Amino acid sequence: MTTTFDIRLRHYPRGFHLVTRDIISQLPELPENGLLVLFIKHTSAALTINENADPDVRYDFRQFFDKVVPDAAPYFTHTMEGPDDMSAHLKASLLGASITIPIKNHRLNLGTWQGVYLCEFRDGGDSRNISVTILG
Amino acid sequence: MTTTFDIRLRHYPRGFHLVTRDIISQLPELPENGLLVLFIKHTSAALTINENADPDVRYDFRQFFDKVVPDAAPYFTHTMEGPDDMSAHLKASLLGASITIPIKNHRLNLGTWQGVYLCEFRDGGDSRNISVTILG
Amino acid sequence: MTTTFDIRLRHYPRGFHLVTRDIISQLPELPENGLLVLFIKHTSAALTINENADPDVRYDFRQFFDKVVPDAAPYFTHTMEGPDDMSAHLKASLLGASITIPIKNHRLNLGTWQGVYLCEFRDGGDSRNISVTILG
Repeated sequence: MTTTFDIRLRHYPRGFHLVTRDIISQLPELPENGLLVLFIKHTSAALTINENADPDVRYDFRQFFDKVVPDAAPYFTHTMEGPDDMSAHLKASLLGASITIPIKNHRLNLGTWQGVYLCEFRDGGDSRNISVTILG
Repeated sequence: MTTTFDIRLRHYPRGFHLVTRDIISQLPELPENGLLVLFIKHTSAALTINENADPDVRYDFRQFFDKVVPDAAPYFTHTMEGPDDMSAHLKASLLGASITIPIKNHRLNLGTWQGVYLCEFRDGGDSRNISVTILG
Repeated sequence: MTTTFDIRLRHYPRGFHLVTRDIISQLPELPENGLLVLFIKHTSAALTINENADPDVRYDFRQFFDKVVPDAAPYFTHTMEGPDDMSAHLKASLLGASITIPIKNHRLNLGTWQGVYLCEFRDGGDSRNISVTILG
């Protein structure tokens, strides 16, 4: 059985944010076994899975990605939408638009230290739409 | 219900190419709700989801990835298949072999600005095989 | 129908390792058509799909990722768990926690040259837990 619906995450500032609880609170009862697919419907934000404990990890994620994919790189030609737009597109593809999480015994089968990050790459972002698919 | 079949994308030159319409034209009627999984059966090309409007974005993708993963880096040891082979393998894993797109109301539930990119990393590439899976 | 279970991969040293056979040997008979999802339950290791033949490719993967994401980068603030911990988290998200492989005619529908890599980013790693989901 497949269940599909869209949810909305409130606006977060540019950076990496732990949203596991916010997402779980918006899910119905999960099937015994299956998959949860979260898909972000934007090209300047992403979802990833990483360490859920120390906020320093999320801080360092921002530092790293801002260094590897600088805003307003001199060779960018797509510059009309601001210095953080083309860098946001590149980061979005490096991290990906979707994550897939197994469901086991009616719960997300995440590792002990795993959580869901919303990766917001825009200075002036907005709330973000996530398509949720539950396969049972 | 699961439907599986392979499709072929014509040869595209090295770079990033919007193939959303080409792929949709090769799909049967979609289920009411579900998932579309596209999986590229090659290790020197990839699929990603990004901005579907301005071609400058795809141009800048090529510039960025060619800088971060240079052809013929001096420390590469896998050099027998040409200067663009090892760089192609690395880019393929950075972007990934598959994308998962939700299906809602018999249509792909993409955001307004999202499209599917074929990422071709070889100068002398060929047509590319994509395995399509539709879960309903 | 959905089947879910966890498997364990033995400890591998830091680097990239071809584990296709090890994983296939732990799978039950596959459905005629479907998907295999492999999800690693850790934040300092990853899974990816790449070239299954020349071991030089895996060697060059390690060189590349160690250069792009250096251990103990001077701007890292998350340093309590060792010089290879924050770099491991970043690499884990760049490559991703899960891979999705189509199943066709009861077999994985991989390309001729594709195999599954375990990406181990820790010097002192351990065996790794993989959640397996088979959708038929």
